[in-house]
Amino acid sequence: MIIVTRIGVTDEEVDQIRERVEGAGLRTHISRGETHTIIGCIGEEERLQRVPLLTLPGVESVHPVMKPFKLASREFSAGPSRVAVGDTEVGGDEITVIAGPCSVEGDEMLRATARAVAAAGARGLRGGAFKPRTSPYAFNGMGSRGLEILARARAESGLPIVTEVMDTRHVEEVAGHADVLQIGARNMQNFALLTEVGRLHRPVLLKRGMSSTIRDLLLAAEYVMKQGNMNVILCERGIRTFETATRNTFDLAAIPVLKRETHLPVVADPSHAGGRRDLVAPLSFAAIAAGADGLIVEVHPAPDEALSDGDQSLDFAEFSDFMERLRPFATAVGRRLAESVEEDPAVEEPRQMVMTSATESP
Amino acid sequence: MIIVTRIGVTDEEVDQIRERVEGAGLRTHISRGETHTIIGCIGEEERLQRVPLLTLPGVESVHPVMKPFKLASREFSAGPSRVAVGDTEVGGDEITVIAGPCSVEGDEMLRATARAVAAAGARGLRGGAFKPRTSPYAFNGMGSRGLEILARARAESGLPIVTEVMDTRHVEEVAGHADVLQIGARNMQNFALLTEVGRLHRPVLLKRGMSSTIRDLLLAAEYVMKQGNMNVILCERGIRTFETATRNTFDLAAIPVLKRETHLPVVADPSHAGGRRDLVAPLSFAAIAAGADGLIVEVHPAPDEALSDGDQSLDFAEFSDFMERLRPFATAVGRRLAESVEEDPAVEEPRQMVMTSATESP
Amino acid sequence: MIIVTRIGVTDEEVDQIRERVEGAGLRTHISRGETHTIIGCIGEEERLQRVPLLTLPGVESVHPVMKPFKLASREFSAGPSRVAVGDTEVGGDEITVIAGPCSVEGDEMLRATARAVAAAGARGLRGGAFKPRTSPYAFNGMGSRGLEILARARAESGLPIVTEVMDTRHVEEVAGHADVLQIGARNMQNFALLTEVGRLHRPVLLKRGMSSTIRDLLLAAEYVMKQGNMNVILCERGIRTFETATRNTFDLAAIPVLKRETHLPVVADPSHAGGRRDLVAPLSFAAIAAGADGLIVEVHPAPDEALSDGDQSLDFAEFSDFMERLRPFATAVGRRLAESVEEDPAVEEPRQMVMTSATESP
Amino acid sequence: MIIVTRIGVTDEEVDQIRERVEGAGLRTHISRGETHTIIGCIGEEERLQRVPLLTLPGVESVHPVMKPFKLASREFSAGPSRVAVGDTEVGGDEITVIAGPCSVEGDEMLRATARAVAAAGARGLRGGAFKPRTSPYAFNGMGSRGLEILARARAESGLPIVTEVMDTRHVEEVAGHADVLQIGARNMQNFALLTEVGRLHRPVLLKRGMSSTIRDLLLAAEYVMKQGNMNVILCERGIRTFETATRNTFDLAAIPVLKRETHLPVVADPSHAGGRRDLVAPLSFAAIAAGADGLIVEVHPAPDEALSDGDQSLDFAEFSDFMERLRPFATAVGRRLAESVEEDPAVEEPRQMVMTSATESP
Repeated sequence: MIIVTRIGVTDEEVDQIRERVEGAGLRTHISRGETHTIIGCIGEEERLQRVPLLTLPGVESVHPVMKPFKLASREFSAGPSRVAVGDTEVGGDEITVIAGPCSVEGDEMLRATARAVAAAGARGLRGGAFKPRTSPYAFNGMGSRGLEILARARAESGLPIVTEVMDTRHVEEVAGHADVLQIGARNMQNFALLTEVGRLHRPVLLKRGMSSTIRDLLLAAEYVMKQGNMNVILCERGIRTFETATRNTFDLAAIPVLKRETHLPVVADPSHAGGRRDLVAPLSFAAIAAGADGLIVEVHPAPDEALSDGDQSLDFAEFSDFMERLRPFATAVGRRLAESVEEDPAVEEPRQMVMTSATESP
Repeated sequence: MIIVTRIGVTDEEVDQIRERVEGAGLRTHISRGETHTIIGCIGEEERLQRVPLLTLPGVESVHPVMKPFKLASREFSAGPSRVAVGDTEVGGDEITVIAGPCSVEGDEMLRATARAVAAAGARGLRGGAFKPRTSPYAFNGMGSRGLEILARARAESGLPIVTEVMDTRHVEEVAGHADVLQIGARNMQNFALLTEVGRLHRPVLLKRGMSSTIRDLLLAAEYVMKQGNMNVILCERGIRTFETATRNTFDLAAIPVLKRETHLPVVADPSHAGGRRDLVAPLSFAAIAAGADGLIVEVHPAPDEALSDGDQSLDFAEFSDFMERLRPFATAVGRRLAESVEEDPAVEEPRQMVMTSATESP
Repeated sequence: MIIVTRIGVTDEEVDQIRERVEGAGLRTHISRGETHTIIGCIGEEERLQRVPLLTLPGVESVHPVMKPFKLASREFSAGPSRVAVGDTEVGGDEITVIAGPCSVEGDEMLRATARAVAAAGARGLRGGAFKPRTSPYAFNGMGSRGLEILARARAESGLPIVTEVMDTRHVEEVAGHADVLQIGARNMQNFALLTEVGRLHRPVLLKRGMSSTIRDLLLAAEYVMKQGNMNVILCERGIRTFETATRNTFDLAAIPVLKRETHLPVVADPSHAGGRRDLVAPLSFAAIAAGADGLIVEVHPAPDEALSDGDQSLDFAEFSDFMERLRPFATAVGRRLAESVEEDPAVEEPRQMVMTSATESP
Repeated sequence: MIIVTRIGVTDEEVDQIRERVEGAGLRTHISRGETHTIIGCIGEEERLQRVPLLTLPGVESVHPVMKPFKLASREFSAGPSRVAVGDTEVGGDEITVIAGPCSVEGDEMLRATARAVAAAGARGLRGGAFKPRTSPYAFNGMGSRGLEILARARAESGLPIVTEVMDTRHVEEVAGHADVLQIGARNMQNFALLTEVGRLHRPVLLKRGMSSTIRDLLLAAEYVMKQGNMNVILCERGIRTFETATRNTFDLAAIPVLKRETHLPVVADPSHAGGRRDLVAPLSFAAIAAGADGLIVEVHPAPDEALSDGDQSLDFAEFSDFMERLRPFATAVGRRLAESVEEDPAVEEPRQMVMTSATESP
């Protein structure tokens, strides 16, 4: 911590400041300039959190020196961390694409989506069972039944499941069905929830809050890591600004800044950032070009019929086309994308869908 | 909902849009202009939430007509609602000042604070037992023990207690000790928590999230009210903007806008909005001048020793002086402030404090 | 300037940094902590503007110590400055209210407004001759003819004139008719224009840009003052944020922060901040409560007929009522408002209006 | 324009609203819903700008239907416009890279830069002669002498010149030396300046203001185009938000949104958006991936010695490397980048530089 004093600070004031800092267990190093005196504080900076330096007499400004996050920093772990999710590692050479509907709406739609996105090269299946909605009158997910549907889709497709947990009381249940626990933007500073998912070893996909700085995001990751869970994947999904032409403002530069500051992998969510189907491709291409390790994309069998976020979801053909167009950007950054499967799975599957549906109904 | 079509929309596109709207159970009313066709949708607007109108072919823009909140609206209840808290009613003729430390740090400090703020005219005691902190390394409150200390301070001072609840698992316990459950800014869209406090009848002090619009705040109140708990007090505490000279940007205009849009009482938190002791008074005076029903102010026996938020806390003498200076502003808006008690309670109390402390120790 | 180095900085890197700083003519003071080395730079900080410290090897962060503004600072002039405008001094004991239409629309409407606002206690007349408009298709003012109308209204009413100048080529002409030159929010960083108005001694009303920090505003004032013109009045008029319920977000806290940082007087513009007639009173009361030295308020004889900003303009009766309601707030801050004139000037004036109008027509 | 009335609006209020709209020369189309009445206004929407609809009794909200910009819209001109600059066309198949120093600092440095960036594939030379600086104490450019230096660099290198004009009084002079007139972010709403550059046919590079919406940017372009100058190139350079980790927040999504809304070409400025040398490459790659037509990049012979913006400037080797790494992204979007010149021009040039310098000195 560096303390800068006001012009005209008295010796008594400097002494008082020094005593407060030393009283908190740090050493001080005083440097007198022509107009300002600078007090360097040497030692554990957190101890000064309890000293109201800013309003001590004679203080003009206070400058933290230490980064507030430790486990998430490049100083703690230099190399890029890789988080194993299913058969892939987020943060490795491969660009990881996770795809699926905003909400789980039923068994068939989810399994059809799983097959389609897997065939196109996705390596994870997203789908919300518990949905945070701004309005209490909106569809808020199928809850526990949605989790079971996700588990069945995993069993059939082999894709690992990414789904949101919103309540500390549900962490155990969600962890019983999901491969990756998603913390949504609105819960990025739900510290009880962060602590709870930190007690597991299940990977956590941590979305940036819409008014969170990059530093806040890293401190939220630190909450999880401090409990022992190092498997954190960060997600840029847009911040809230004055611009209303897009649902959020996609903070593209956060991707390279995060890659510089932390060893954790970083993915982008182009669907929520832009809020429109036609923006998914350009935002995704840009995210990969800027160094993102992966993407999480909303895909729905019939976006026009989706119970939520239909405006920003791709259908199967659009997603498949999108993945092909994404490929050269992965190559341009020296990485690769999982291959798409040659045979069209759509030909065989419909019958299976009907059967499943019949099984499920009674 | 009003749908505006693109220039050059075809009749087929208009028909498709109309079919989608009518398929959701609404009626349509089509009005053809020189360049644009306007489709008015008559009926329950929420049903259209599931129709991705924005990306239907031919659609240029979509304009909701209905306010998304109902129970919180002036249409639902015209008059100002009053929320009973202890002996006072927030939203009534009296300006309600709630004061106390950021965190409960011990029994004596809290009881001394309770006496001091009550003597100066405060009608509620705030104090955090569970504290949301951006860094996992910061002091995060005394937890359950803090709640017990709050309960004792209430018993002695008669002041109702306002304290934060951060976790759905703690709602019952906190409600067992507190008169008002505070939902902090970071949890304003923790929908599980909103739902849980909505199941009680205990008043809820709902702080505006730092990137929440006024509409978002009213929808968060709606979550609580939809469960049956109408006792919601809204709190403006600053939003996040590009300006860094203050901790947050106090959105003063939110106060009169909220008073126009909702019947719920509105208070302001000048301590968190400004983040500095010297801003508490001007922001408070302004809030009352603009129509706020009350204030929630951080007061600490020795701000320089506070475990959190010392920079923005007033000491007892400052708070007492602040209350006297506040009085003419209450008068100017045709309201009043609780009287300060003439005799100085500090004269008698020290012995009691020591005794209490002794009683507590074993 | 304080330079903080990265963990693991080498001695060579520290030497290079020191050399660059000393090469710019400053002295250095090095303090080695456990993990970081801190390099204090003593001397004229501006000289370091040309050294790209942030990207020198080994540098982690750079912290300016000196305030970048000088003439505007409390260090340069401790007491509150007063700017003489007509018979009053902005920044003195009296709250200065400046009122008038958004745009000058004609001779009669302006003179009627001047009489009405003067009678209610206004001490200045505002009115735009050159209007900045977001759209090139909107009414952009009467130009030079508007200036002449303003001059006649001054002659008749005795009120000093406040009007905007938008173009360096018009500064001389506007200064020939106006008592106060207004620099609008969109031109707050039009440095050529700031320099030009700085060459006069005419008071300047400098509106805060909608994305300008308080520091930016003070630097803009510094541009004017550096040319020799110390008569700068600062104006808070709202900033741009994510909130759309109001035209801008009125940054109330900027008022006390500015009063702490600078000796210059500070006024508020509640009309542009809120964008709605019903917000003018609460925002004004709040601004005065928070310490503003004055207000600039839009008033129009018939707001429903106004060529611009009708939504946020008061009519004469509303303004007169507003001024009476404002009075107790002025008293509450220990200041006063100019008296309203007892006799109703509206009774006598209409005939005069007609005559004037007749004179003007040919 | 669509007007939505409040719940409980009276027939008289609806009649008054209708009369005001019809009085402005539009037709109305009234549609009564269960709770709200909707009044569609058919005709020239601009005429309603002068009617304060928002505060008429009974009005709840007002929704513009027409886009406020015309000449800049896709409706006016469907195809992508190409703006000829030197030998290239911005908006054509080739990605146009414009490079050069923040400020012109001298003859030699500029000519060396011109040669270096041309060799690496740049198609335009940027360099500021008139510099907008937040502080009046910062270096603000060489002025007219800088323009002459730019003209000589063009004569030698063949590269077209892009330079900023900040003052209406300088437009003619700058246009005498520059191929493209740059309007900086701080002047994006300097309407006098926009009008003045609109009177020429010289291409205009219009930078987005830091608090300007996409709509504001298009309206600023409309100002230029309305005067007859259709040669407008839009530039995304970051907006101001709460995030402080980067100089500005690069609004990547603005690129595809602009490409959808307007026919004008769009370039990106990664240097100002990020404010750091290490962010230039990822932001540039992303911009091209998202559909930008070009880039404007700061390059300096010795960034550590630059008089301004050294932190964000690339040196020659970095720029050359950057261009090679950019190439695959151009390919991935189906476009191309000008070839770099095989032979290294640096071998021959030094002597010439010395001679030039000698010539210049006396």
